[in-house]
Amino acid sequence: MSHPDTTFDRLVSLRRELHRHPEPAWREFYTTSRIVDELEAIGVDELLVGSEFIDPETRIGVPERAEIDRWYETAQQAGAREDVLDRTEGGVTGALAVVRAGDGPTVGLRVDIDGLPRTESKSEDHVPAAEGFRSETDAMHACGHDAHVTFGIGVIESIVNGSAFEGTLKVVFQPAEEVIGGGKAVAESGQLDDCDHLLAVHIGLDHPTGEVVAGIDGFLAVHHFEATFTGKSAHAGSHPNEGTNAIQAVAAAVENLYAIPRHEDGATRVNAGVVEGGSAPNIIPETARFEGEVRGETTELKSYMREHATRVIENAAGMHGCGVDIDAVGDAPSAKSDDVIVDVVEHVATETDGVETVLRRDDLGGSEDATYLMQRVQDNGGTAGYVGIGTDHPGGHHTATFDVDESSLRIGVDVLAESIQKLAGDGGS
Amino acid sequence: MSHPDTTFDRLVSLRRELHRHPEPAWREFYTTSRIVDELEAIGVDELLVGSEFIDPETRIGVPERAEIDRWYETAQQAGAREDVLDRTEGGVTGALAVVRAGDGPTVGLRVDIDGLPRTESKSEDHVPAAEGFRSETDAMHACGHDAHVTFGIGVIESIVNGSAFEGTLKVVFQPAEEVIGGGKAVAESGQLDDCDHLLAVHIGLDHPTGEVVAGIDGFLAVHHFEATFTGKSAHAGSHPNEGTNAIQAVAAAVENLYAIPRHEDGATRVNAGVVEGGSAPNIIPETARFEGEVRGETTELKSYMREHATRVIENAAGMHGCGVDIDAVGDAPSAKSDDVIVDVVEHVATETDGVETVLRRDDLGGSEDATYLMQRVQDNGGTAGYVGIGTDHPGGHHTATFDVDESSLRIGVDVLAESIQKLAGDGGS
Amino acid sequence: MSHPDTTFDRLVSLRRELHRHPEPAWREFYTTSRIVDELEAIGVDELLVGSEFIDPETRIGVPERAEIDRWYETAQQAGAREDVLDRTEGGVTGALAVVRAGDGPTVGLRVDIDGLPRTESKSEDHVPAAEGFRSETDAMHACGHDAHVTFGIGVIESIVNGSAFEGTLKVVFQPAEEVIGGGKAVAESGQLDDCDHLLAVHIGLDHPTGEVVAGIDGFLAVHHFEATFTGKSAHAGSHPNEGTNAIQAVAAAVENLYAIPRHEDGATRVNAGVVEGGSAPNIIPETARFEGEVRGETTELKSYMREHATRVIENAAGMHGCGVDIDAVGDAPSAKSDDVIVDVVEHVATETDGVETVLRRDDLGGSEDATYLMQRVQDNGGTAGYVGIGTDHPGGHHTATFDVDESSLRIGVDVLAESIQKLAGDGGS
Amino acid sequence: MSHPDTTFDRLVSLRRELHRHPEPAWREFYTTSRIVDELEAIGVDELLVGSEFIDPETRIGVPERAEIDRWYETAQQAGAREDVLDRTEGGVTGALAVVRAGDGPTVGLRVDIDGLPRTESKSEDHVPAAEGFRSETDAMHACGHDAHVTFGIGVIESIVNGSAFEGTLKVVFQPAEEVIGGGKAVAESGQLDDCDHLLAVHIGLDHPTGEVVAGIDGFLAVHHFEATFTGKSAHAGSHPNEGTNAIQAVAAAVENLYAIPRHEDGATRVNAGVVEGGSAPNIIPETARFEGEVRGETTELKSYMREHATRVIENAAGMHGCGVDIDAVGDAPSAKSDDVIVDVVEHVATETDGVETVLRRDDLGGSEDATYLMQRVQDNGGTAGYVGIGTDHPGGHHTATFDVDESSLRIGVDVLAESIQKLAGDGGS
Repeated sequence: MSHPDTTFDRLVSLRRELHRHPEPAWREFYTTSRIVDELEAIGVDELLVGSEFIDPETRIGVPERAEIDRWYETAQQAGAREDVLDRTEGGVTGALAVVRAGDGPTVGLRVDIDGLPRTESKSEDHVPAAEGFRSETDAMHACGHDAHVTFGIGVIESIVNGSAFEGTLKVVFQPAEEVIGGGKAVAESGQLDDCDHLLAVHIGLDHPTGEVVAGIDGFLAVHHFEATFTGKSAHAGSHPNEGTNAIQAVAAAVENLYAIPRHEDGATRVNAGVVEGGSAPNIIPETARFEGEVRGETTELKSYMREHATRVIENAAGMHGCGVDIDAVGDAPSAKSDDVIVDVVEHVATETDGVETVLRRDDLGGSEDATYLMQRVQDNGGTAGYVGIGTDHPGGHHTATFDVDESSLRIGVDVLAESIQKLAGDGGS
Repeated sequence: MSHPDTTFDRLVSLRRELHRHPEPAWREFYTTSRIVDELEAIGVDELLVGSEFIDPETRIGVPERAEIDRWYETAQQAGAREDVLDRTEGGVTGALAVVRAGDGPTVGLRVDIDGLPRTESKSEDHVPAAEGFRSETDAMHACGHDAHVTFGIGVIESIVNGSAFEGTLKVVFQPAEEVIGGGKAVAESGQLDDCDHLLAVHIGLDHPTGEVVAGIDGFLAVHHFEATFTGKSAHAGSHPNEGTNAIQAVAAAVENLYAIPRHEDGATRVNAGVVEGGSAPNIIPETARFEGEVRGETTELKSYMREHATRVIENAAGMHGCGVDIDAVGDAPSAKSDDVIVDVVEHVATETDGVETVLRRDDLGGSEDATYLMQRVQDNGGTAGYVGIGTDHPGGHHTATFDVDESSLRIGVDVLAESIQKLAGDGGS
Repeated sequence: MSHPDTTFDRLVSLRRELHRHPEPAWREFYTTSRIVDELEAIGVDELLVGSEFIDPETRIGVPERAEIDRWYETAQQAGAREDVLDRTEGGVTGALAVVRAGDGPTVGLRVDIDGLPRTESKSEDHVPAAEGFRSETDAMHACGHDAHVTFGIGVIESIVNGSAFEGTLKVVFQPAEEVIGGGKAVAESGQLDDCDHLLAVHIGLDHPTGEVVAGIDGFLAVHHFEATFTGKSAHAGSHPNEGTNAIQAVAAAVENLYAIPRHEDGATRVNAGVVEGGSAPNIIPETARFEGEVRGETTELKSYMREHATRVIENAAGMHGCGVDIDAVGDAPSAKSDDVIVDVVEHVATETDGVETVLRRDDLGGSEDATYLMQRVQDNGGTAGYVGIGTDHPGGHHTATFDVDESSLRIGVDVLAESIQKLAGDGGS
Repeated sequence: MSHPDTTFDRLVSLRRELHRHPEPAWREFYTTSRIVDELEAIGVDELLVGSEFIDPETRIGVPERAEIDRWYETAQQAGAREDVLDRTEGGVTGALAVVRAGDGPTVGLRVDIDGLPRTESKSEDHVPAAEGFRSETDAMHACGHDAHVTFGIGVIESIVNGSAFEGTLKVVFQPAEEVIGGGKAVAESGQLDDCDHLLAVHIGLDHPTGEVVAGIDGFLAVHHFEATFTGKSAHAGSHPNEGTNAIQAVAAAVENLYAIPRHEDGATRVNAGVVEGGSAPNIIPETARFEGEVRGETTELKSYMREHATRVIENAAGMHGCGVDIDAVGDAPSAKSDDVIVDVVEHVATETDGVETVLRRDDLGGSEDATYLMQRVQDNGGTAGYVGIGTDHPGGHHTATFDVDESSLRIGVDVLAESIQKLAGDGGS
């Protein structure tokens, strides 16, 4: 199965348009609007947008309302559709498309759609800058989710226009992956509970164009949190004993957080990535906060780290007479790609045009909240897999010069669409 | 000597106007403009504004240019005079007025004029809010420097209109006391080098209306600094070993900074008052900074603390593979009020209307960059003193509900003007 | 009043004998025996030894029984009297002598008698080594308590043989000052409750021979403690997560202990002086302990430090999953010398042979458990003072080369005996 | 191949005798003497003892001379042979036996012989206590090296008395494994350089009697060190600023040592296992030391940890004005069992009487200095393997109740002797 070049040209064009309008987690208003445009153009059997399938209460990592509204207005000015803005109002973004084609099994595909809050390179060596599709917002598609959207659209178009697929296809365009905040909400929507198979996908990951990984594993379970310490302000010169010092508490917490013992069962991680506090050099700081994360090779190891982190943080606060609130701002379990999926993708990839190397398995070594969806499907008796589509990317993921080789878009769509067809066929047999 | 009520009413009105327009350090554009208005109305023999007596290079604690310009525009919109704005452009604020009245000695008076970067209370219990002169800017006169300006204006008016003073009066309206950034610049202007006597003054300090402190001592020498750590960013999940973690370095520095040994020779202080760093929970933070201060009961003790702080900070950086820059952002020595000044003020205060209690000496227990000026005058063979004018203040200094009892304005002007006259008389005899 | 040279020679000889037999806190068996010998030779009206006036339960800083018994045997071998050993058995050392001479007031004198657990210099420059009276035990009289005993003996002899004293004299030979462990026990014996006046004394303190300090103040209140952390042992290589690490807890405690905020009311101190823990480099340490102290310029400041230290230690334990016990091992309040005493001593010293300089007051800057006794007498309505008798000492207190200039022994006895006589006379008038 | 029960009874009896005389690292005087007895009884072709093959300078982790001499005397009193004592004098313990039986390959076997410095359980549930062969020294065979000696003796006896072996057998009875101090010395003796194959062995490791692991891997490379900090002593009350505090430096080092970042390439470990310092609660501690270790899944990861640890320790010292010396006290690389060895042992074990389960490979998860010898042989072109012989052990390794099931002695000898024979046969073919 292959696609006419016109389709491919449209995907490239869509990807570049999205690349110009990157939106961070729970602020993907314009992106959702464009996805709806495309899906309506193709024609799908069911299309749910934002609050039509996501319960706002289940979201994690949601920004302040003023920040959401700022992006809402930006999207409006950029021409986002009012009917889509209504359905995503308050930051309930994303979309779910369903294609029904007979009695076969239900196969899901999950792609994520958000950008990162960082500035894109202006260098002439950076293709989006050189060719005029550099970000026009404060954010950047520095992880290739613009390409992921085109995978989703391309696969639906391929399935709808093809004739071989028998079954139900559900493609979820998931918001807020970068803050590990959307996966749980989509999982809890229950929309994927009837999936017999689920595919998730990522572009790049240091694999070159022409390389495909049939099953990515090694997802570290992760937990993001924010710890806010509250002490008591006082003048540091005249009343040093009257304050309780929130920055001292943060320092004690950070030092001892990194010192949580290693675990014999596997890899663990810890980071204090953002810190902020105090008001003036001569005032004992009343409040200070940090954002951090713990990870584990398994969900159990993540729990081990989380429990120890909580103990450290609470005692650091107590040590310096401060109170502390610890809020979860992101979370994802570990997960594994099932052999049955890996077998299919490996086989399909081997026969796909443009694919030169197929790796059966590789480790991610990072985290990703697709694991919530994979685990949900697996818990319900289905199978799940995470596919890697290589692309030559000049800068690393999350850096200012990240970019994708657009010739990998076609490879991604082909591998995914064909695998989905095979899974429907196999699962239905 | 006393003043007609009309004078007093005008001072109250001026103080309230200044209270509505508080401006932080090196951004006192509107304030300087109003001071110039008043001085021109009174008529002084010499009037130097901003860059006419302050060398921009000697300023410390100067904010970013964009921040200065923002306040410059705000002042412009509030009606600050263009000729004053020209002379203070780029944040070289403040003024110096000279009154020449015969051959007697030169007496200086220093008042500070800046506000604090904090929000003022909106409570109906807070008089400025209830009576309509609450701050209209982002800042607040939370330390009474609005009253200090009226002391300076009132004293000049009193001396100019009186007949008893024989000598030269120099009143400096000093910017940037709150960041300990203006005292050094004024001292280095040399304008006070010929002073035989110098008075500095503060309102409040937990003394009630009707109480005067003839000589305040116990200034802690102080040094403000900013330490900026530079590490190397990396993904905390996939490459934990590739980063060098600036927040870990800050934590190690803060913890060990507070643990600098006490000193047998007297009181020392240390504070990390502001901390900031990192970009995201899952990224090893490349940069982090904190602003802090050390103090000592003597200038030597301040040096002891500063040396140890430098040692701690540099090794904290080295420990975590980071570089660090330590920048001085404020500094003031210790100082003592001379007996000759204290004798005069004590005597004058005892006979001043409205004064109920006179304390000969009291300790500040904090820091203040008037000490630069006091020390300069003392080094040149003159004498210096720091006077406290009590006022009932409902909230503590630097808090959102700080306010002054305006009846203390008249007391302050009377005590200072009469003391200056006496010092000129005594000094000239 | 002066003493025949034979008396002085005997005091020198006694001091040298005691110097050869230094015994640390609660192990002063031989020392007590020698004191009893001297007191019996002089003849006093009442003589209480060890458990006859000290309740064993009130002692603090008592060593292990095996350690006590080792010194008990050493004393026995050195010729300590069996009847004294019986009365001091188990480490209840010290003695109290009472001289009754008519109806006048009761005057107390407190001298301390213990040595320090350190090795004495063998250098030929060190007089005790050169002249053959260097320590023959593991300990050393490195703080001059050997001289203090001779002060007590000399004063009693002087009072008993003189005729001027009318009243009651109580001299307590207090054990365990170096661990701040005996003062409380003697105070709680109640034996000094009827004192109208109390004198305590120290030799040296950086004052030369011929200098006397009439009233020493500036005692820092002090609290010694031992914190013992209990975690869980595990193999650091194979089961790093199974242990809870007592040394990590100690490290967190020590770092944050030094960082207890300074206090505006005056000087504070903190020290972790001894640390010990763990069993092998590859085993997660199950237990670790440290001995430390906090001090304050006032008893309140000591309490402030103690409360904060407790908070830090408990949270350091909690942070690393350990339990902790904090035991008090020494304690003394702050105290002040009363003017009435200082007046008398100052006057007497001025007229004493060999005294060249009299300082009315000076600060100790350290701690001393005579304050328990001073406070007790003051609380009961009496007055108390702490006298300094200068002596040329080549090495600092507590160092291996500390020694006293024996010509100061006579000065000490004369000043104290004459002051006591005056106090009895004044107090009785 | 099997052994008569009388042989087995003798091995049990030898193991119990050694269990009664455990000796720690580099103090195995009595143990070496008994090994020599046994080897002479069996008759070997060459027997090297202590300094006959170990260069004293290459030893690491050697205790103080006084400690060595104490164990020397203890061994003498227990009946150790004078000729063996001569050859092991100063703590150069261990033995090497060579059996030459024709032209086949050279096969090495390494067993370790030292005990641990810990007290053995007296519980009646503990078989050595109940049956009268509990430790009679301060140490304990808490890791089964007593059994290892019997493996070595039993294998030699089996080979000497058998007829099938053609080649050279070298059995090294290695001292000081527990401090990772003997492996390097034996490797550098060069005695194993001509080995075509090398086997090392361990009993227990949580495998039950009847289970054999053909090839143990997962040795963490390890580095033991001692860091000694030197500051400056001062009185903590009166001169807090004059000291430089070695315990503060240790605390800063320990806290930040545990916080060395995790590494993406695999497991790392760190431990501060022993800490000691200071002299008294009121003295700023002049010296403090700690013993610690770092480990890595590979030798590179160990180096990463070691470099970071050095950086942390040196900066912790610098931060608190102290000097520091870091001494290596033990070191071992990582290593892997070669497939050719694992194949042979797996096959042999499957056919050995009493063996119920054979695991092809398992991870140790700890460290072991046999890796020095394995690496040496592998570097010289030979192959090496590490065999695990299961045994029911009631208490964990290194605990007071560790014991072995003596029926596993026979299994160990059989598996090893037969494997050696097979390796000689295969290697020679």
